[in-house]
Order: sequence, then C-alpha cells, then structure tokens
Amino acid sequence: MGLLPGFSSVVLAMALALLNAASVHGGKVLVFPVDGSHWINMNLLIEGLHTRGHEVTVVRTSTSWYIKEQSPHYHSITIPLSEAMNLEKQDFFVQFLAKMLVLQKEGASVMAFVSFYRQMLTTLSNIHHQACQVAEKMFKDKALMQSLRDAQYDVVLMDPGLPFGVLFAHELKLPTVFNVRWITSGEGHFVVAPSPVSYVPTSGSAVTDKMTFLQRVRNMFHFLLNIAIDNLVVSPHYNRLVEKYLEPGTNFYQLLQGADIWLMRVDFVFEFPRPTMPNIVYVGGFQCKPSKPLPADLEDFVQSSGEHGVILMSLGSLVKGLPVEITNQIAAAFAQLPQKVIWRLPGEPPSTLGNNTMLVKWMPQNDLLGHPKVKAFVAHGGTNGIYEAIYHMVPIVGIPLLFDQFENILRLEVRGAAKGVDVTKLTSQNFVETLQEVLHNPSYRDNMKRMSDLHRDKPMHPLDTALFWTEFVMRNKGAAHLRTESYKLPWYSYHSLDVMCLLLAVLSLLAALVVLSVYFLCFKLCRRKDKLE
Amino acid sequence: MGLLPGFSSVVLAMALALLNAASVHGGKVLVFPVDGSHWINMNLLIEGLHTRGHEVTVVRTSTSWYIKEQSPHYHSITIPLSEAMNLEKQDFFVQFLAKMLVLQKEGASVMAFVSFYRQMLTTLSNIHHQACQVAEKMFKDKALMQSLRDAQYDVVLMDPGLPFGVLFAHELKLPTVFNVRWITSGEGHFVVAPSPVSYVPTSGSAVTDKMTFLQRVRNMFHFLLNIAIDNLVVSPHYNRLVEKYLEPGTNFYQLLQGADIWLMRVDFVFEFPRPTMPNIVYVGGFQCKPSKPLPADLEDFVQSSGEHGVILMSLGSLVKGLPVEITNQIAAAFAQLPQKVIWRLPGEPPSTLGNNTMLVKWMPQNDLLGHPKVKAFVAHGGTNGIYEAIYHMVPIVGIPLLFDQFENILRLEVRGAAKGVDVTKLTSQNFVETLQEVLHNPSYRDNMKRMSDLHRDKPMHPLDTALFWTEFVMRNKGAAHLRTESYKLPWYSYHSLDVMCLLLAVLSLLAALVVLSVYFLCFKLCRRKDKLE
Repeated sequence: MGLLPGFSSVVLAMALALLNAASVHGGKVLVFPVDGSHWINMNLLIEGLHTRGHEVTVVRTSTSWYIKEQSPHYHSITIPLSEAMNLEKQDFFVQFLAKMLVLQKEGASVMAFVSFYRQMLTTLSNIHHQACQVAEKMFKDKALMQSLRDAQYDVVLMDPGLPFGVLFAHELKLPTVFNVRWITSGEGHFVVAPSPVSYVPTSGSAVTDKMTFLQRVRNMFHFLLNIAIDNLVVSPHYNRLVEKYLEPGTNFYQLLQGADIWLMRVDFVFEFPRPTMPNIVYVGGFQCKPSKPLPADLEDFVQSSGEHGVILMSLGSLVKGLPVEITNQIAAAFAQLPQKVIWRLPGEPPSTLGNNTMLVKWMPQNDLLGHPKVKAFVAHGGTNGIYEAIYHMVPIVGIPLLFDQFENILRLEVRGAAKGVDVTKLTSQNFVETLQEVLHNPSYRDNMKRMSDLHRDKPMHPLDTALFWTEFVMRNKGAAHLRTESYKLPWYSYHSLDVMCLLLAVLSLLAALVVLSVYFLCFKLCRRKDKLE
Repeated sequence: MGLLPGFSSVVLAMALALLNAASVHGGKVLVFPVDGSHWINMNLLIEGLHTRGHEVTVVRTSTSWYIKEQSPHYHSITIPLSEAMNLEKQDFFVQFLAKMLVLQKEGASVMAFVSFYRQMLTTLSNIHHQACQVAEKMFKDKALMQSLRDAQYDVVLMDPGLPFGVLFAHELKLPTVFNVRWITSGEGHFVVAPSPVSYVPTSGSAVTDKMTFLQRVRNMFHFLLNIAIDNLVVSPHYNRLVEKYLEPGTNFYQLLQGADIWLMRVDFVFEFPRPTMPNIVYVGGFQCKPSKPLPADLEDFVQSSGEHGVILMSLGSLVKGLPVEITNQIAAAFAQLPQKVIWRLPGEPPSTLGNNTMLVKWMPQNDLLGHPKVKAFVAHGGTNGIYEAIYHMVPIVGIPLLFDQFENILRLEVRGAAKGVDVTKLTSQNFVETLQEVLHNPSYRDNMKRMSDLHRDKPMHPLDTALFWTEFVMRNKGAAHLRTESYKLPWYSYHSLDVMCLLLAVLSLLAALVVLSVYFLCFKLCRRKDKLE
C-alpha cells in the first residue's frame, strides 16, 4: 500500500488556506503580547491576520525590546514606562544563570539556595507587578479607554504569560483568544483542563507521563508548589487590579478560565498525551516552514564540510553568554571533530576555538536546519528551536539552562531524538562523546524522522489552524459552546465531595439501621429464649 | 466586517478532500460494525474509504438485517448464526415500548418496575452474549483466523457498541479506530477521558451540564449504576472470551481504552462541553450533506402547502409502531393545522387522519429537511435525524421513546431549538399547542440557525476528518503519541490516593512532633516553675 504522505496534505492545506484568505475581509484585533521569544510567535500570527485583511492593534510599552512601535502589519498603542525592569539590558538572565550554575555545581548551603529561590520569586513578582502597572496606566487613561471602546474590536488576542489583557477583554466585552503555552505560574492546560497529577507532569517536576511512586510524590509537590506560587506571588497583583477597576464579584482566575479559544503551542509528537478541552486548539510548530537557500558564503562553508556535515549550535535569544570555562570546553570539543560547526555566540571567542568552527552573531536557523548537510543541533531546548528541529528532522544535543528547557529536552530524550548534557558537569570529553553518539547512532535521526513525519501529517498547517480559530471567534462572537463553565463551581462541588458526603451519610445510616435491627432482633430472641428456658 | 461564512470553507474543504482522494492508494480495512441505525453511519465511512481506494472487509452475521452480504463497497465475512436474537423480526422494541408506556402511565408497582428493569438488563446481557458467540465462532474457525492473519489488514475499524472487535485487533496486532458514541453500557467518553460527574451528564441521568445539588446526586447515582451494569452485566461476557482466547494478563477494558483513534459522533453544538483526549476526533454530523431535489409527486405535495409550509414526522427505524391511541391523538392534532404533514408511519393509518396529512412508508428525510417549505420536524430524537435537522436549520418537536433519545431532546431544549412532548401524557390538545409554539415562535428557528452556522463553521467536513484520521492510523501504524496509557495505573494511583496518603502521613507526623515538642516544653517549664516556687 502507498498511503498519502503527510507533507502533500500540508501543501494541499496551504492551497486551501490561500483560497480561504481570498474570501476574508477585515476584522479588528486587539493584541496583548509578551515580549522576548514569545513575541516571535505572536508576530507570526499577527502577520497572518494582517495578510488575511484584518486590522491589528498591538499594546506595547515604551521600553519594549522586541515589539517595535512601527510595523507594516499592525498599529501600536504605546504605554509609557520609565522605570521598566528591562530584563535584557540588565543582562538579568546571564547573572541568573551564573548564580544557578554556582549553586548547582558547588552544592551550595540550604541558606544560599533559599536566598536564590527567594530572589527568583521576587523577580517573578516584579515582572507581574510591572504588567499590572501597565494595565493600571491604561485604566487611568480615560481617553485611551474611550478610544478602545470606540474602536469596536472583534476579539482580544493575547499571550496569557502576562495575563492583564483579560481585564480589558472583560471591560470591553470582547471574546478572547489565547496564544499560549505558559500561564501565570504553570503550563496552560492546568488552568482549564483536568490534569491528573498521576500522569500529567507539572512544570518544574522534570518527570515523564510514566512515573514511579516517588516521582508521583515529586510531581504532586511541584503541583502544590505551583498553586502556592500562583496564589501567593502572582495572582494578588491581578486581584488588586480586578477589585479596583472591574465590577464587584469579578474573579481574576475565572476571567482566565473563560477564554474562548486556547491556541496551545503544543504538538503531541513532542508533549505527552494528556486530557484537553474542546476549546483548546493545538498549534505546536505553527512557525515551521520550508527552508530557503542560504547566503553564498554560508552555503560555501556548509558545503566545505564534505561527507561529515555540519553541526549547528545556538542557545537562543535570552542568554547572551555562558561562563568562559564552559564555552572553552565546548569549543575544545568541537575542535576535535571532523564536522564543520556554526555557532551562534554573542560574546567573546573562546580561546580553544578550532578552525572548523565559525562563530556568528545571528544565523538563518530555519534555513540551516533544513539544509541536508546539517547533522545535529546543539540547542538550549526552547520550544521554537525544538519544533524547527523536529520539522527538519535534525537530532538535538541539549544544553538546557533555564525554565522549561530541562523538561523540553527530557521530552525529546524519552523519544530517543535528543541527548541532554548537564551544563554544570560539562567537559570537552563528555561533550564530544555526546556529540559523537548523536552524530553516529542512526536511531536519533530515525526517531526525529518519525516525529517529523507524524508532526507534518495533519489536515491543515498549524498556522492556518490558528488563524481559522481566531477568525472563528471573530465571526461567531466567541466560542461559548466549546467552553465549559464548570470552573464556576465551588471546588468541593467540582470534585463531587459534597455528593460523596451525602452518599456516605446515607450508607452509614443504612448500616447503622441494619446493625441496630440485628441487635434488636438478637435481643428479642435471647429474651424469648431466656423466657422459654 | 464581513468574515468568511462557514459554508464556503466547507465547500473548500470538500475540494481539498477531492484533491486528497486522488493521491491515496489502497490500504486494507477490517470492519466490525453494529447492526441497525449504527450501520447507517458505518456504511458512510466505508463508502468514503472505498472511494479513496481502500479495500474494506466487513464482518457480519448470517442474520444481519441492515448489513448486506453483497455490496459494491466492501467484501463481507459472514458468520453463521441460526439462533440469533433478531430484534427487528421479533418486534422487540415495539413490545418494549408498549410495556414502558404502561409502566410510566399507570404508575406501576415497584415489583412491576423491578421486573421490567430486570428484563431490560437480561436483554442487554443477551445482546452482548450473542456478540461474544459470534466472536467465539470466529476464534474457533482456524481457517478463518488464518485468512484474517494472511490478509494483512492495516487497521480495524469498529463500532464499540458491541466491542468484540478489539479482541481481534489485539490478536492480529492491528491498530484500532472506533466509530463511536456509545460503548458497552455508557457514553464513549467515560471510558477514555476524565469525566467529572459534577458537570458531565452520565447516560440515563437526564441532566444538563449545569446541575443543582440533587441533580448532581442523581448524576452520581447513574454513574455508579452504569459502572455496576458494565461490571456485572456486560464485561463478564468479554472477560470470559479474553481469558479463553488471548494470552494471560490481557485485560478487556484496557483493550477498549487502548484504541488509537476515537471518531466520536458528537459535535459540541449539540453536546455539552466536556474534557476530551488528544486521540478523540469529533465527527458529529458527518452524514450531513446538501439536499437533492424531491421526486415530482412529493415536490407537488410540499408546494401545495403554500405559505403555511410542511411538518415532517418520523420516529426512526427502530420503532415500527406506537400504540393506536397515541397515533390517533397525533393524527387529530395534525388535522387541526393549516400546514401539510408528511408522516413516516409503517403501521395502520390512524382513524383520525386529516386531509392535510400524507402517510409514507419511507421518505427522503435529508432532502425534505433541506426543503425551504419544511417548517418543523417531529422526531424521536435519534442522533442521525437531529444532526440532519441542525444542518438544515429545522426546529424539532421531540417525542423521545427509548435510550438516549430523552437526553438528545433535552440538549436541544436547553439551546431553545426544540420542544419535547411526554409520550405518556400526549393528547391532541397539548400536541397541537407544542407544534404551534415551535412553528410560530421564531426563537426556535433562530436558535437552530445559530447552531447550524456554528456546526458548519469548520475547516473540514466531519466526514473528511473521519477519513483523514482513519488513513492517519493506516499510514502511521497507530497513533500511540496521541493516546495516554494512564489507564494501566491502578485506580488508587490514577487518582493519586497513595501519594495523598503519604503526604497526610508526613503531615500528621510533623503535627505530632510539634504537639509533642510543645507538650514537652510546657512540661519542662512547669517543672522549673514548680522548683522555683
């Protein structure tokens, strides 16, 4: 048998999308994005919406790093912010990473760890505090609020990583579409879909969907920890805003849960299978697209690798630098290999750099990953890069550094498509061994190919799916029929604890009656027996 | 703004499907269908698979009523069955209905009710016993089993209403696609998706997704009842087979839960929103299609209705007749109306029949429902008819008689698209009033139109979705990445009860330590105080 391969169906779906695009006219979209790598995803959606004839307005701050004021694809509303926590400029993540490495490497004291963790929570709180400051400035600006009302948008599109947009969606009585993977302090699913802790890994727990008893205990611990962080560190900022600016009885968490459509940046080729809801639409890998030809000099370098091929390395946009001792180890490892290496490294060149390694400040990552000479991808494990690697079938050597990167690499390891390296224990020796295993053991590429085939085998490209459902919400003024309102139940009713108490009470009563009856009967019988005797 | 209306996207998706069809070559599909109205759905899928170049083999019995031995779309394997419970020939459902009506009408004694319920369970048990007899005949037929192995099918497609096909899928090591709404003794979702009883209605409970406390108690009761029926009445038949013919350690319920893709005959326009799983694909209304022109005589009759329009009535294929006193009341009600009526009535004409009513043995239901003159549909509430009515925006007067029909009509009533009539209390007077309300209150048609718009607003027609995912399983030899294996956990682990016990134990220990320490401290202090005094 020769069944339809997935890719041609994607091509056909693209043709359909073009046909679709022709018959759509302009709606109005109000966007609350999150800065940094999140913006890359959101901007793609915005470009798609613009191409399909919609008018997009983006809310940004005067201190945004990635979100430009001027764009051919959107208008912008800029909220002035003088005292911004500009995480990029402060090299926050470089410092954060350096501290974490020291702590992990030296087996630091409990006090040092607590102090570090406290600092992390303070930072988290500050980020949300700043988001709420932006929101408050908007609420206080009567002219702005009136202009938002007058604009008559059709939908609020937002990244709920910083979820203050839900307050404005509520205020403007607009349906909401989330472009989401993380929300407040955890994975987005946990807010809206049943998530049995027995097989759904919680953020931070670093377990798979098949856990031992102790792993399940750990998963439960992280689950409770995330709830605590959400309730004590994150939500209070938003609750204060809701109380101050929205009508009484409004509940921030219910605003989050009430979103019409969740465009979830997840694909089950990568994520473990788990319960979901009818209004969650999976768009993982929606940024993936065929590669374009490389610039001539890069193509020459790639071709010069001959039969050995090329290794790519990039640790993403957030981390500007690794400690020098680590980059030296990595460079020394690369220098031992017959492959050519293209390494995106913003800082100083390592002293141990080999002739086979080209350092670049930026690279056309998607076009390189799609090049047949590229044999492996050394990556930090951000989801954008991972989905591109899956799409182009390039196995990964993972050096996870922050946040969800550890769990992302774990997901690929479980599927035999990547091998992770612990950055705190990285030496040129073990790094070379890992590289050679991923380069020479064909199972890594085979498993990546299998994942890629499954990922591409869809009736529609995920970007078209995302655009379809955003337009669906605009056309139908929401998607109430896909959205449960069970989150409005008290927790004990949601979990049927009240019903079970009643049933237990009734059963106990029945049992008591039976016992009493038997006792009474025995008593009577005994007395009669006594009398007879 | 003028966004793309749903229908044109459906047309485009159909064009895509045609393109797809051209590039698909033959796989081999083994089908285990369920007879009766279920077969109508399955046959549609089979025709689709045949059109796309696949070779389909259907397992039927020599006593099948709907499933013909010869078809241009499939081969068949006929299992001889002499002593079949032929439900149709025995007029089983007519008798069943008559008994039920008497019980409901006359407020029968508890004993009569228990005896009736017992008979119902016996019938259920007999149906599954017969399915297992078919399976056993197959397992014992060595030549047949060898030919099944030799045929090298790509997938088992089955209706798990009678789920013996999973045993053969397991034996033949084939991936499985379910075409499903009901399974063993309940709604299919309950087997594979988390189903909080607090907002997910259980089969038989006749509640919506928004329940009072007492309704939640009732829902829990039906939930427990369904589990009991499944464990005591249904599963034992299959367990016996599994023990006898499959390797030790195989678990029937896990075979059910392990299906690769569930093509769920549900659309959330109709069903209440509820948790789902990544391998559940919604194909509700996949039988819906544009109407064709009517035969000339029927068209003449319909046109003769003038401005008043036409009422359709059909109570489906299962029930051959209602008691005469009820059909007389219905006919008398119709006779009072200015509309024309087309009534599919297999039995004797009622004595009270009016001139405006045409009795037919069969009617082109989809073509009539799509006719602009048709104003209302009097229906029993089977899902096939309901989805056709939704597709063609025809409001419903419901006369639910059996099984899920009560709950189906309830779902439409909640959405304001239908009004139900209690058949045990039906009089010509209240029936006329109900008809007039549905005919003259525009909200019924408006709500049906809203549901229809939402139902049609999909990126692909549900039939194409069903075919895509069936072929997906064939191409990829299953869909393991979409399927959780959490069902293999013991129930106490699945619900994290063991983890919670540990946490409680640790907390208790900590509390005890604190209490003891405080007690010890007090004791010491008091003693010192005593000494000082």
